[in-house]
Amino acid sequence: MPHNYIKIELFSYFFSVHEIVLCVCVCIPCVTTAHRGQYKCRIFNLYHEACSDTATITIGPSSITDASWVEIDRATDKVALLIGNMNYLYHTQLCAPIADVHELTNLLRQMDFKVVSLLDLNWQEMHSAVTEFLLLLDKGVYGLLYFAGHGYENYGNSFMVPIDAPSSYTSEHCLCVQNILTRMQEKETGLNVLLLDMCRKRNLYDVVIVQPGLLKVTANIVFGYATCADAEAYEVKREDVSNGIFISFLKRRVCEDEKVTVMLDRVAEDMGRCEITRGRQALELRSNLSERRSLTDRIQTAVCSASHSARNLQWAVANVLPKSLCLQFDCGVKVQLGFAAEFSNIMVIYSRILEKPPEIVSCCAQLTDFPEDVDIDLKKSNQETLLEAGSLLLVREDLPSPEVPSLYTRIRCLQRLKRELTFTICLHYTYSNMDDEVQERQPVTVGKPLVSKLNLHEPRPPPAQSASSSSSSSFGLDSFNVPESSSCASFGSASSAWSYHAQSGQISSRNQSTTSFRSANIPEETDSKCFDAPQPLVASKSLPHGQINDTKYKFSDMYNFHSH
Amino acid sequence: MPHNYIKIELFSYFFSVHEIVLCVCVCIPCVTTAHRGQYKCRIFNLYHEACSDTATITIGPSSITDASWVEIDRATDKVALLIGNMNYLYHTQLCAPIADVHELTNLLRQMDFKVVSLLDLNWQEMHSAVTEFLLLLDKGVYGLLYFAGHGYENYGNSFMVPIDAPSSYTSEHCLCVQNILTRMQEKETGLNVLLLDMCRKRNLYDVVIVQPGLLKVTANIVFGYATCADAEAYEVKREDVSNGIFISFLKRRVCEDEKVTVMLDRVAEDMGRCEITRGRQALELRSNLSERRSLTDRIQTAVCSASHSARNLQWAVANVLPKSLCLQFDCGVKVQLGFAAEFSNIMVIYSRILEKPPEIVSCCAQLTDFPEDVDIDLKKSNQETLLEAGSLLLVREDLPSPEVPSLYTRIRCLQRLKRELTFTICLHYTYSNMDDEVQERQPVTVGKPLVSKLNLHEPRPPPAQSASSSSSSSFGLDSFNVPESSSCASFGSASSAWSYHAQSGQISSRNQSTTSFRSANIPEETDSKCFDAPQPLVASKSLPHGQINDTKYKFSDMYNFHSH
Repeated sequence: MPHNYIKIELFSYFFSVHEIVLCVCVCIPCVTTAHRGQYKCRIFNLYHEACSDTATITIGPSSITDASWVEIDRATDKVALLIGNMNYLYHTQLCAPIADVHELTNLLRQMDFKVVSLLDLNWQEMHSAVTEFLLLLDKGVYGLLYFAGHGYENYGNSFMVPIDAPSSYTSEHCLCVQNILTRMQEKETGLNVLLLDMCRKRNLYDVVIVQPGLLKVTANIVFGYATCADAEAYEVKREDVSNGIFISFLKRRVCEDEKVTVMLDRVAEDMGRCEITRGRQALELRSNLSERRSLTDRIQTAVCSASHSARNLQWAVANVLPKSLCLQFDCGVKVQLGFAAEFSNIMVIYSRILEKPPEIVSCCAQLTDFPEDVDIDLKKSNQETLLEAGSLLLVREDLPSPEVPSLYTRIRCLQRLKRELTFTICLHYTYSNMDDEVQERQPVTVGKPLVSKLNLHEPRPPPAQSASSSSSSSFGLDSFNVPESSSCASFGSASSAWSYHAQSGQISSRNQSTTSFRSANIPEETDSKCFDAPQPLVASKSLPHGQINDTKYKFSDMYNFHSH
Repeated sequence: MPHNYIKIELFSYFFSVHEIVLCVCVCIPCVTTAHRGQYKCRIFNLYHEACSDTATITIGPSSITDASWVEIDRATDKVALLIGNMNYLYHTQLCAPIADVHELTNLLRQMDFKVVSLLDLNWQEMHSAVTEFLLLLDKGVYGLLYFAGHGYENYGNSFMVPIDAPSSYTSEHCLCVQNILTRMQEKETGLNVLLLDMCRKRNLYDVVIVQPGLLKVTANIVFGYATCADAEAYEVKREDVSNGIFISFLKRRVCEDEKVTVMLDRVAEDMGRCEITRGRQALELRSNLSERRSLTDRIQTAVCSASHSARNLQWAVANVLPKSLCLQFDCGVKVQLGFAAEFSNIMVIYSRILEKPPEIVSCCAQLTDFPEDVDIDLKKSNQETLLEAGSLLLVREDLPSPEVPSLYTRIRCLQRLKRELTFTICLHYTYSNMDDEVQERQPVTVGKPLVSKLNLHEPRPPPAQSASSSSSSSFGLDSFNVPESSSCASFGSASSAWSYHAQSGQISSRNQSTTSFRSANIPEETDSKCFDAPQPLVASKSLPHGQINDTKYKFSDMYNFHSH
């Protein structure tokens, strides 16, 4: 049981040399309905065994006045959006967000959060990413938003600064967290966690007072601010990839099986012992969370499988890597292409020579001719180590067959890719009997990898006017065209390959159709409104049911190369 | 140790029928310096005893990286201001603040807080009360502000509404909590707790944006909001004196020996189970408190005794009741006057016939001719029960000699008393041989009781410009004229009597002199500035040293009648 434990105390009293009385005291500090049932006590040693009568424990609302009784709703799902902005166009560059987002992504995935992690987004991309995130939220879902980057707080509202914000930015160039929160509430989320790793100084340029929608009393909002009001959040400038102050401390406790407020309060204590930030930065916790909800709470997968699977699908799209490719060249060389995700918008491609005829003495496969949308540092492309390629977080040992020499190319800003990702493999080789190097080129198309599938560059429609809190959420799967899988493309083939399980079917774009659905199995709150019966999303989306169930995705797998 | 416990687990393993191995596991979850020393384990039963070797535990800053190590600073003092506004002139009257302030006052006093509790203050009085409260804060002092009444929150700032606020009030008619907080921070308080039991809806009349001073990162601020942003706080309208929602739940936990954030988080859980407020009101906790400070933390009385005693004196002034009086009338009747405090600005006076000559058959002593400043409901004066006199919180059994018949008169709004409290005792009596009732009158002056001493009706000078955080705090004792004590005023005497220990000496008013002082014994923070050596406040204030030390006051005593 998350954040519940059963403490068994064994008292032994000595009455005489040969008589012992054992007293077993079972203490359950936080009783939930999960504790009801039959209990027996068995005491044994090597020679003897004794068993008590069965005690039946019933737990019901009659004990509701007892403060220790809690009806815990499990999460219907757990979804997280992590954004780290570092490379600001007109502002100080930051160092830590890359490590911070990476660290938190891994930790949240360990707790079964569905995570999309994005680095360096402009306003449009942040706005679209948040809209996608909101589409995934539904009744009982735990939603977590983490932002590392520049920020400010005016009049009680927090603003996240995109990388394209002008030098004198105002609220219109930024995203208001409280506005996102009101939209999260409309989804009847089970828990709203907002971790803001940014400054909270006032922005004197911004004189407009933003009035986000009125918040509802959902008693499930937790803010974890990296710093206090009017104060700054810090990172330690170092050459290597190190965390900022907030994540340095948060990462040690975020997976603790405690109410999220208790966990954050402990992080605040830890941070308070940090000498270098004393008097400058202190974690601020803001919470109205009444139930003992924890980030480690289990997901009720049995309940609402259709919406759960749909969320899996939708968020999975942003984490789909191209499957490893084998390319056969005319000269007899066979090249393998592999893909690894560093973030949802940063991918590393490696190329390896799998086979070469004996008459070829030297041979390498270089990637070139990438689309202009994506961001590639040409000086760092086709490098012999991941570090030289600019990937500080992936290590070769994480990849399949690390002993095989590879060339690495790191592609950033995948969210800006408007069409499929195309590039050329340029094979340079030399025959043993020739001095001149020979080149052979082959075009490759790998579809829209990772977050590029979500078309974050496209403006989103304005948020629907605050629907009544009990209305069903609108849900769409974004242009999810899954091409045929080809595990090893034959020579001359430039078709893309997908590691994704769903291998056929087409889901219409969000703009063309939206599907309402709602689970009927979710525990009712005080209002006992009738919800629509769950509509199998799968049917209307032309995805065979079996596939949907297969999509219980381990997103953390996505960070590994797919090859064979 | 507050919020620390030592858990001892005893495991017993059975190796054979006659051999038992006991394993004792001692677990100290939160180690502080108080845990260092020598430990021994003694195991015993009726017949045998065994003792382990001595283990010496040293705990020092070397283990500072261990998250479980805490150097706990104790409070140098604990001071609370509680204001409850009910009888609004132009707004809905409230019911619960009287019970809420009363309840919390008692609980805080149990935890050794010096409490001033005030009902129904106008703007000037609230402003003056806060100024007095701020004067008492000093380095390491725990300051707690509780407000029950109407309120609102605009642009992140909380405003407390005085009873004289016009129908369309704005920030200029109200007190800004964040502004008070910045002034609390200037005093280098050890803990700032702000409990706001009021609505947090937006005030649309108020278009002015208040910009309180910038908050410092002191990592010791805890807000306990009775409700969420944009939401209302509730009380249940009932005939009797009952608590509002917030205090109903807070009172069950406020004395728990836990970090104040943990305590409030549990109150939030309790409140979450309240059906009638679900979806309407939920406690919001806002904290940047890094250290494990608790409301139950002990006061370091050994440290900084001069400033501590001065605070005792200053705050004590607001809680000084007139001492019981005996008045001799010409007719031979002896009347006793007693005084009881319901709040710091509400006093009950009772009159009793102590002696009467046998020839007088009926006799009663009624109070009349009160000054116009104070608020007395004439229909409820000189009543035979406390309830009829309007005092719902005091019970006769709390008073000395409850069996003696008395007449009760309740005086409210003592803070408006500009001169000494004067009234007339009108003795009505009848001789056995006469039909006509005879009257005999005697004027009484009892000085300035309770909070009237603080002259809250007088405008305060604007707060001094934010002194640097390490500057010494300005401290003054307000016009503290202690008249001679007269335990039983002789016939014809109208001198006032004071229960206060200090019986002579005069302290000059704050406007004439201020004294800087600072304790040298307070643990240093990161900055190691040299502070002024503690100046004995007593010397400059003409109070003999012995008296200062005598003033370690149990304020809770003040609520009882003083008589003999």
